[in-house]
Amino acid sequence: MKHAQASRSTTCSSKFRSTTLPNNIKYCAQCGSVVEEKIPSGETLLRAVCPSCHIIHYENPKIVAGSIPEWEDKILLCRRAIEPRLGLWTFPAGFMELGESTEEAAARETLEEAHAEINIHSLLGIFSLPHVSQVYVVYRAHLQNLNFKPGPESLDVQLVTLADIPWEHLAFPVIHESLTRYVKDIQGATAQTHSAVVPTQKPPSFYSS
Amino acid sequence: MKHAQASRSTTCSSKFRSTTLPNNIKYCAQCGSVVEEKIPSGETLLRAVCPSCHIIHYENPKIVAGSIPEWEDKILLCRRAIEPRLGLWTFPAGFMELGESTEEAAARETLEEAHAEINIHSLLGIFSLPHVSQVYVVYRAHLQNLNFKPGPESLDVQLVTLADIPWEHLAFPVIHESLTRYVKDIQGATAQTHSAVVPTQKPPSFYSS
Repeated sequence: MKHAQASRSTTCSSKFRSTTLPNNIKYCAQCGSVVEEKIPSGETLLRAVCPSCHIIHYENPKIVAGSIPEWEDKILLCRRAIEPRLGLWTFPAGFMELGESTEEAAARETLEEAHAEINIHSLLGIFSLPHVSQVYVVYRAHLQNLNFKPGPESLDVQLVTLADIPWEHLAFPVIHESLTRYVKDIQGATAQTHSAVVPTQKPPSFYSS
Repeated sequence: MKHAQASRSTTCSSKFRSTTLPNNIKYCAQCGSVVEEKIPSGETLLRAVCPSCHIIHYENPKIVAGSIPEWEDKILLCRRAIEPRLGLWTFPAGFMELGESTEEAAARETLEEAHAEINIHSLLGIFSLPHVSQVYVVYRAHLQNLNFKPGPESLDVQLVTLADIPWEHLAFPVIHESLTRYVKDIQGATAQTHSAVVPTQKPPSFYSS
Protein backbone atom coordinates (compact mmCIF):
# COMPACT_ATOMS: atom_id res chain seq x y z
CA MET A 1 0.00 0.00 0.00
CA LYS A 2 1.43 3.29 -1.11
CA HIS A 3 0.77 6.24 1.16
CA ALA A 4 1.00 9.87 0.24
CA GLN A 5 2.98 11.86 2.78
CA ALA A 6 0.44 14.60 3.14
CA SER A 7 -2.03 13.13 5.59
CA ARG A 8 0.54 11.17 7.59
CA SER A 9 1.57 11.75 11.13
CA THR A 10 4.38 14.24 11.26
CA THR A 11 7.46 14.11 13.40
CA CYS A 12 7.05 15.42 16.91
CA SER A 13 9.76 17.52 18.48
CA SER A 14 11.47 17.05 21.84
CA LYS A 15 12.22 13.34 22.20
CA PHE A 16 9.40 12.65 19.71
CA ARG A 17 6.42 13.43 21.93
CA SER A 18 5.02 16.91 21.81
CA THR A 19 2.51 19.04 23.62
CA THR A 20 1.67 20.81 20.39
CA LEU A 21 -0.41 19.31 17.65
CA PRO A 22 1.37 17.91 14.63
CA ASN A 23 -0.77 20.36 12.72
CA ASN A 24 -2.26 17.80 10.39
CA ILE A 25 -5.82 18.65 11.29
CA LYS A 26 -7.21 22.11 10.60
CA TYR A 27 -10.83 21.30 9.73
CA CYS A 28 -13.31 18.82 11.20
CA ALA A 29 -13.60 15.75 8.96
CA GLN A 30 -17.24 15.31 9.97
CA CYS A 31 -18.69 18.85 9.60
CA GLY A 32 -15.97 20.99 8.00
CA SER A 33 -15.70 23.49 10.88
CA VAL A 34 -12.32 24.94 11.80
CA VAL A 35 -11.06 22.87 14.73
CA GLU A 36 -9.71 24.25 18.00
CA GLU A 37 -6.57 23.07 19.76
CA LYS A 38 -7.43 22.19 23.33
CA ILE A 39 -6.80 19.62 26.02
CA PRO A 40 -10.08 17.72 26.44
CA SER A 41 -11.42 17.09 29.92
CA GLY A 42 -9.68 14.14 31.52
CA GLU A 43 -6.77 14.20 29.06
CA THR A 44 -3.27 15.65 29.13
CA LEU A 45 -2.38 16.34 25.50
CA LEU A 46 -3.55 18.98 23.04
CA ARG A 47 -6.04 17.63 20.52
CA ALA A 48 -7.90 18.95 17.52
CA VAL A 49 -11.46 19.41 18.80
CA CYS A 50 -14.44 20.50 16.74
CA PRO A 51 -16.31 23.41 18.38
CA SER A 52 -19.48 22.54 16.43
CA CYS A 53 -19.90 18.77 16.68
CA HIS A 54 -17.44 18.29 19.59
CA ILE A 55 -15.57 15.43 17.98
CA ILE A 56 -12.02 14.94 19.21
CA HIS A 57 -9.81 14.11 16.24
CA TYR A 58 -7.13 11.78 17.54
CA GLU A 59 -3.99 11.02 15.61
CA ASN A 60 -2.21 7.77 16.32
CA PRO A 61 0.82 5.82 15.10
CA LYS A 62 0.45 3.66 12.01
CA ILE A 63 1.31 0.00 11.65
CA VAL A 64 3.54 -1.24 8.84
CA ALA A 65 3.21 -5.01 8.42
CA GLY A 66 5.80 -7.03 6.55
CA SER A 67 7.26 -10.46 5.98
CA ILE A 68 10.62 -12.09 5.42
CA PRO A 69 9.73 -14.87 2.95
CA GLU A 70 12.12 -17.83 3.25
CA TRP A 71 13.03 -20.39 0.57
CA GLU A 72 15.71 -22.93 1.48
CA ASP A 73 18.69 -20.80 2.59
CA LYS A 74 17.45 -17.64 0.89
CA ILE A 75 15.05 -14.78 1.61
CA LEU A 76 12.98 -12.67 -0.77
CA LEU A 77 13.81 -9.00 -1.12
CA CYS A 78 12.22 -6.30 -3.27
CA ARG A 79 13.85 -3.28 -4.92
CA ARG A 80 11.60 -0.27 -4.47
CA ALA A 81 10.00 1.32 -7.54
CA ILE A 82 8.54 4.20 -5.54
CA GLU A 83 9.76 7.04 -3.38
CA PRO A 84 10.97 7.31 -0.74
CA ARG A 85 14.15 5.30 -1.26
CA LEU A 86 13.41 4.36 -4.85
CA GLY A 87 15.92 1.78 -6.05
CA LEU A 88 16.83 0.50 -2.59
CA TRP A 89 16.02 -2.92 -1.12
CA THR A 90 13.50 -4.04 1.45
CA PHE A 91 11.50 -7.05 2.48
CA PRO A 92 7.81 -6.75 1.49
CA ALA A 93 6.02 -4.39 3.91
CA GLY A 94 3.38 -1.70 3.89
CA PHE A 95 0.69 0.13 5.80
CA MET A 96 -1.97 -2.02 7.44
CA GLU A 97 -5.55 -1.37 6.28
CA LEU A 98 -8.73 -1.16 8.31
CA GLY A 99 -10.38 -4.53 8.91
CA GLU A 100 -7.25 -6.68 8.60
CA SER A 101 -5.14 -8.62 11.05
CA THR A 102 -1.40 -7.94 11.11
CA GLU A 103 -0.83 -11.36 9.52
CA GLU A 104 -3.31 -10.60 6.72
CA ALA A 105 -1.68 -7.24 6.12
CA ALA A 106 1.79 -8.80 5.89
CA ALA A 107 0.57 -11.48 3.47
CA ARG A 108 -1.31 -8.92 1.34
CA GLU A 109 1.69 -6.62 1.09
CA THR A 110 3.90 -9.56 0.12
CA LEU A 111 1.46 -10.50 -2.62
CA GLU A 112 1.14 -6.90 -3.84
CA GLU A 113 4.82 -6.05 -3.89
CA ALA A 114 6.29 -9.38 -4.99
CA HIS A 115 3.36 -11.52 -6.22
CA ALA A 116 4.66 -13.92 -3.59
CA GLU A 117 2.44 -16.34 -1.69
CA ILE A 118 3.53 -17.07 1.85
CA ASN A 119 2.69 -19.06 4.96
CA ILE A 120 3.53 -17.03 8.03
CA HIS A 121 5.17 -19.22 10.68
CA SER A 122 6.37 -16.82 13.39
CA LEU A 123 6.66 -13.25 14.55
CA LEU A 124 10.18 -11.87 14.11
CA GLY A 125 9.46 -8.71 15.99
CA ILE A 126 7.78 -5.43 16.61
CA PHE A 127 9.85 -2.33 15.95
CA SER A 128 8.77 1.14 17.02
CA LEU A 129 9.86 4.19 15.04
CA PRO A 130 8.73 6.99 17.36
CA HIS A 131 10.33 9.72 15.23
CA VAL A 132 7.84 8.97 12.44
CA SER A 133 5.09 7.44 14.62
CA GLN A 134 5.20 4.06 12.92
CA VAL A 135 5.33 0.52 14.30
CA TYR A 136 6.68 -2.27 12.11
CA VAL A 137 5.28 -5.77 12.70
CA VAL A 138 7.54 -8.24 10.89
CA TYR A 139 6.78 -11.93 10.37
CA ARG A 140 8.93 -14.83 9.23
CA ALA A 141 7.21 -16.81 6.49
CA HIS A 142 7.65 -19.76 4.18
CA LEU A 143 7.54 -18.81 0.52
CA GLN A 144 5.04 -21.21 -1.02
CA ASN A 145 6.36 -21.32 -4.59
CA LEU A 146 8.72 -19.55 -6.98
CA ASN A 147 6.05 -17.68 -8.94
CA PHE A 148 7.16 -14.32 -7.59
CA LYS A 149 7.70 -11.28 -9.79
CA PRO A 150 7.77 -7.52 -9.21
CA GLY A 151 4.48 -5.85 -8.33
CA PRO A 152 3.83 -2.24 -9.37
CA GLU A 153 5.76 -0.89 -6.36
CA SER A 154 8.86 -3.00 -7.04
CA LEU A 155 11.56 -2.74 -9.73
CA ASP A 156 12.95 -6.17 -8.96
CA VAL A 157 12.34 -9.13 -6.65
CA GLN A 158 15.17 -11.52 -5.81
CA LEU A 159 15.89 -14.50 -3.60
CA VAL A 160 19.20 -13.83 -1.86
CA THR A 161 21.34 -15.81 0.54
CA LEU A 162 22.01 -14.17 3.88
CA ALA A 163 25.61 -13.58 2.73
CA ASP A 164 24.28 -11.60 -0.22
CA ILE A 165 21.93 -9.23 1.62
CA PRO A 166 22.71 -5.78 0.19
CA TRP A 167 23.33 -4.16 3.60
CA GLU A 168 24.49 -0.85 2.15
CA HIS A 169 21.53 -0.59 -0.18
CA LEU A 170 18.66 -1.25 2.23
CA ALA A 171 15.82 1.25 2.12
CA PHE A 172 15.31 2.10 5.80
CA PRO A 173 17.07 1.68 9.18
CA VAL A 174 14.20 -0.54 10.37
CA ILE A 175 14.84 -2.93 7.48
CA HIS A 176 18.51 -3.05 8.44
CA GLU A 177 17.65 -3.63 12.11
CA SER A 178 15.10 -6.35 11.34
CA LEU A 179 17.40 -8.22 8.97
CA THR A 180 20.36 -7.91 11.35
CA ARG A 181 18.32 -9.54 14.11
CA TYR A 182 16.94 -12.12 11.69
CA VAL A 183 20.39 -13.17 10.46
CA LYS A 184 21.71 -13.35 14.02
CA ASP A 185 18.78 -15.59 14.99
CA ILE A 186 19.31 -17.85 12.00
CA GLN A 187 23.04 -18.11 12.64
CA GLY A 188 22.44 -18.82 16.31
CA ALA A 189 19.60 -21.25 15.48
CA THR A 190 17.27 -19.32 17.77
CA ALA A 191 13.72 -18.21 17.07
CA GLN A 192 12.96 -15.36 19.40
CA THR A 193 10.58 -12.45 19.02
CA HIS A 194 12.11 -9.00 19.23
CA SER A 195 10.67 -5.77 20.55
CA ALA A 196 12.81 -2.73 19.93
CA VAL A 197 12.96 0.93 19.10
CA VAL A 198 14.58 2.05 15.85
CA PRO A 199 16.91 3.90 15.62
CA THR A 200 18.47 2.19 18.60
CA GLN A 201 20.41 4.86 20.45
CA LYS A 202 19.80 3.93 24.06
CA PRO A 203 17.29 1.37 25.20
CA PRO A 204 14.41 2.87 27.19
CA SER A 205 15.23 3.04 30.90
CA PHE A 206 12.20 1.00 31.91
CA TYR A 207 13.77 -2.15 30.51
CA SER A 208 15.04 -4.24 33.35
CA SER A 209 17.68 -5.79 31.16
CA MET B 1 -5.77 7.47 27.13
CA LYS B 2 -9.48 7.81 26.71
CA HIS B 3 -10.76 7.99 23.16
CA ALA B 4 -14.07 9.32 22.04
CA GLN B 5 -15.81 6.95 19.68
CA ALA B 6 -16.62 9.56 17.10
CA SER B 7 -13.41 9.83 15.16
CA ARG B 8 -12.48 6.16 15.45
CA SER B 9 -12.34 3.64 12.71
CA THR B 10 -15.70 2.01 12.26
CA THR B 11 -16.43 -1.62 11.67
CA CYS B 12 -16.13 -2.77 8.09
CA SER B 13 -18.59 -5.22 6.65
CA SER B 14 -17.90 -8.46 4.81
CA LYS B 15 -15.21 -10.27 6.76
CA PHE B 16 -14.10 -6.90 8.12
CA ARG B 17 -12.53 -5.44 4.98
CA SER B 18 -14.68 -3.28 2.80
CA THR B 19 -14.57 -1.59 -0.56
CA THR B 20 -16.64 1.27 0.78
CA LEU B 21 -15.30 3.97 3.01
CA PRO B 22 -16.00 3.74 6.73
CA ASN B 23 -17.58 7.15 6.25
CA ASN B 24 -15.52 8.87 8.91
CA ILE B 25 -14.16 11.51 6.59
CA LYS B 26 -16.47 13.95 4.87
CA TYR B 27 -14.32 17.08 4.78
CA CYS B 28 -10.61 17.62 4.10
CA ALA B 29 -8.75 18.17 7.38
CA GLN B 30 -6.27 20.45 5.61
CA CYS B 31 -8.51 22.78 3.58
CA GLY B 32 -12.10 22.02 4.63
CA SER B 33 -13.31 21.01 1.14
CA VAL B 34 -15.84 18.21 0.77
CA VAL B 35 -13.82 15.08 -0.05
CA GLU B 36 -14.55 12.67 -2.90
CA GLU B 37 -14.56 8.89 -2.63
CA LYS B 38 -12.23 7.48 -5.26
CA ILE B 39 -9.59 4.85 -5.83
CA PRO B 40 -6.32 6.75 -6.25
CA SER B 41 -3.99 5.83 -9.09
CA GLY B 42 -1.94 2.75 -8.21
CA GLU B 43 -4.22 1.72 -5.37
CA THR B 44 -7.10 -0.73 -5.02
CA LEU B 45 -9.30 0.66 -2.24
CA LEU B 46 -11.66 3.61 -2.06
CA ARG B 47 -10.18 6.56 -0.21
CA ALA B 48 -11.33 10.00 0.85
CA VAL B 49 -9.51 12.31 -1.57
CA CYS B 50 -9.61 16.11 -1.51
CA PRO B 51 -10.48 17.56 -4.93
CA SER B 52 -8.86 20.89 -3.97
CA CYS B 53 -5.55 20.05 -2.34
CA HIS B 54 -5.42 16.42 -3.58
CA ILE B 55 -4.54 14.96 -0.19
CA ILE B 56 -5.49 11.31 0.27
CA HIS B 57 -6.90 10.86 3.75
CA TYR B 58 -5.91 7.36 4.83
CA GLU B 59 -7.49 5.64 7.80
CA ASN B 60 -5.52 2.91 9.52
CA PRO B 61 -5.84 0.56 12.50
CA LYS B 62 -4.94 1.89 15.94
CA ILE B 63 -2.54 0.35 18.43
CA VAL B 64 -3.57 -0.32 22.01
CA ALA B 65 -0.52 -0.89 24.21
CA GLY B 66 -0.78 -2.57 27.58
CA SER B 67 1.07 -4.42 30.30
CA ILE B 68 0.54 -7.27 32.69
CA PRO B 69 2.40 -6.05 35.80
CA GLU B 70 3.68 -8.97 37.90
CA TRP B 71 4.40 -9.01 41.65
CA GLU B 72 5.41 -12.36 43.14
CA ASP B 73 2.59 -14.74 42.13
CA LYS B 74 0.10 -11.96 41.41
CA ILE B 75 -0.76 -9.61 38.56
CA LEU B 76 -2.20 -6.10 38.64
CA LEU B 77 -5.68 -5.54 37.27
CA CYS B 78 -7.79 -2.39 37.01
CA ARG B 79 -11.55 -1.98 37.26
CA ARG B 80 -12.72 0.44 34.58
CA ALA B 81 -14.21 3.78 35.65
CA ILE B 82 -15.14 4.71 32.08
CA GLU B 83 -17.31 3.40 29.31
CA PRO B 84 -17.29 1.10 27.49
CA ARG B 85 -17.43 -1.77 30.00
CA LEU B 86 -17.48 0.47 33.07
CA GLY B 87 -17.03 -1.62 36.20
CA LEU B 88 -15.31 -4.54 34.44
CA TRP B 89 -11.70 -5.62 34.81
CA THR B 90 -8.68 -5.25 32.54
CA PHE B 91 -4.92 -5.03 32.66
CA PRO B 92 -3.66 -1.47 32.07
CA ALA B 93 -3.88 -0.62 28.35
CA GLY B 94 -4.75 2.27 26.10
CA PHE B 95 -4.26 3.94 22.75
CA MET B 96 -0.69 4.63 21.71
CA GLU B 97 0.19 8.29 21.11
CA LEU B 98 2.27 9.84 18.33
CA GLY B 99 5.98 9.93 19.12
CA GLU B 100 6.06 6.96 21.50
CA SER B 101 7.37 3.43 21.28
CA THR B 102 4.99 0.59 22.10
CA GLU B 103 6.95 0.00 25.33
CA GLU B 104 6.66 3.67 26.32
CA ALA B 105 2.94 3.61 25.56
CA ALA B 106 2.41 0.51 27.71
CA ALA B 107 4.39 2.00 30.60
CA ARG B 108 2.57 5.33 30.33
CA GLU B 109 -0.86 3.70 30.30
CA THR B 110 0.09 1.60 33.33
CA LEU B 111 1.17 4.74 35.18
CA GLU B 112 -1.97 6.65 34.16
CA GLU B 113 -4.49 3.95 34.95
CA ALA B 114 -2.91 2.41 38.04
CA HIS B 115 -0.14 4.81 39.16
CA ALA B 116 2.01 1.71 38.77
CA GLU B 117 5.68 1.82 37.81
CA ILE B 118 6.91 -1.14 35.78
CA ASN B 119 9.94 -2.67 34.14
CA ILE B 120 8.90 -4.35 30.92
CA HIS B 121 10.68 -7.68 30.50
CA SER B 122 9.06 -9.38 27.51
CA LEU B 123 6.41 -9.21 24.83
CA LEU B 124 3.42 -11.42 25.60
CA GLY B 125 1.84 -10.93 22.24
CA ILE B 126 0.25 -8.98 19.48
CA PHE B 127 -3.49 -9.42 19.08
CA SER B 128 -5.41 -8.14 16.05
CA LEU B 129 -9.04 -7.10 16.37
CA PRO B 130 -9.99 -6.63 12.71
CA HIS B 131 -13.68 -6.02 13.49
CA VAL B 132 -12.73 -2.77 15.24
CA SER B 133 -9.42 -2.14 13.45
CA GLN B 134 -7.33 -2.29 16.58
CA VAL B 135 -4.09 -4.11 17.39
CA TYR B 136 -3.22 -4.84 21.01
CA VAL B 137 0.47 -5.01 21.93
CA VAL B 138 0.75 -6.57 25.38
CA TYR B 139 3.92 -6.74 27.47
CA ARG B 140 4.82 -8.70 30.59
CA ALA B 141 6.36 -6.45 33.21
CA HIS B 142 7.77 -6.42 36.72
CA LEU B 143 5.85 -4.14 39.06
CA GLN B 144 8.52 -1.99 40.72
CA ASN B 145 6.78 -1.22 44.00
CA LEU B 146 3.40 -1.35 45.72
CA ASN B 147 2.58 2.35 45.38
CA PHE B 148 -0.24 1.69 42.93
CA LYS B 149 -3.67 3.26 43.26
CA PRO B 150 -6.53 3.96 40.87
CA GLY B 151 -5.94 6.62 38.22
CA PRO B 152 -8.87 8.70 36.92
CA GLU B 153 -9.93 5.95 34.49
CA SER B 154 -10.00 3.23 37.16
CA LEU B 155 -12.43 2.52 40.00
CA ASP B 156 -10.11 0.06 41.66
CA VAL B 157 -6.67 -1.51 41.20
CA GLN B 158 -5.87 -4.89 42.71
CA LEU B 159 -3.12 -7.47 42.78
CA VAL B 160 -4.73 -10.86 42.15
CA THR B 161 -3.42 -14.40 41.99
CA LEU B 162 -3.97 -16.23 38.73
CA ALA B 163 -6.60 -18.33 40.51
CA ASP B 164 -8.50 -15.16 41.36
CA ILE B 165 -8.65 -13.59 37.89
CA PRO B 166 -12.28 -12.49 37.47
CA TRP B 167 -12.77 -14.32 34.16
CA GLU B 168 -16.47 -13.54 33.90
CA HIS B 169 -15.98 -9.87 34.66
CA LEU B 170 -13.23 -9.00 32.19
CA ALA B 171 -13.87 -5.96 30.03
CA PHE B 172 -13.09 -7.24 26.51
CA PRO B 173 -12.53 -10.52 24.65
CA VAL B 174 -8.92 -9.48 23.94
CA ILE B 175 -8.27 -9.16 27.68
CA HIS B 176 -9.69 -12.66 28.16
CA GLU B 177 -7.58 -14.04 25.33
CA SER B 178 -4.37 -12.35 26.51
CA LEU B 179 -4.80 -13.50 30.10
CA THR B 180 -5.74 -17.03 29.04
CA ARG B 181 -2.51 -17.31 27.07
CA TYR B 182 -0.54 -15.65 29.87
CA VAL B 183 -1.82 -18.08 32.50
CA LYS B 184 -1.15 -21.05 30.24
CA ASP B 185 2.42 -19.84 29.68
CA ILE B 186 3.00 -19.34 33.40
CA GLN B 187 1.56 -22.74 34.26
CA GLY B 188 3.63 -24.37 31.53
CA ALA B 189 6.71 -22.36 32.52
CA THR B 190 7.08 -21.13 28.96
CA ALA B 191 7.71 -17.60 27.76
CA GLN B 192 6.57 -17.40 24.19
CA THR B 193 5.30 -14.46 22.18
CA HIS B 194 1.84 -14.82 20.72
CA SER B 195 0.38 -13.46 17.50
CA ALA B 196 -3.34 -13.99 17.12
CA VAL B 197 -6.65 -12.65 15.92
CA VAL B 198 -9.40 -11.84 18.46
CA PRO B 199 -12.16 -12.79 18.70
CA THR B 200 -11.26 -16.34 18.00
CA GLN B 201 -14.03 -18.23 16.31
CA LYS B 202 -15.98 -18.90 19.44
CA PRO B 203 -15.79 -16.06 21.92
CA PRO B 204 -16.73 -16.87 25.51
CA SER B 205 -20.49 -17.00 25.81
CA PHE B 206 -20.66 -14.24 28.40
CA TYR B 207 -19.47 -11.65 25.89
CA SER B 208 -22.17 -9.75 24.12
CA SER B 209 -19.96 -9.07 21.11
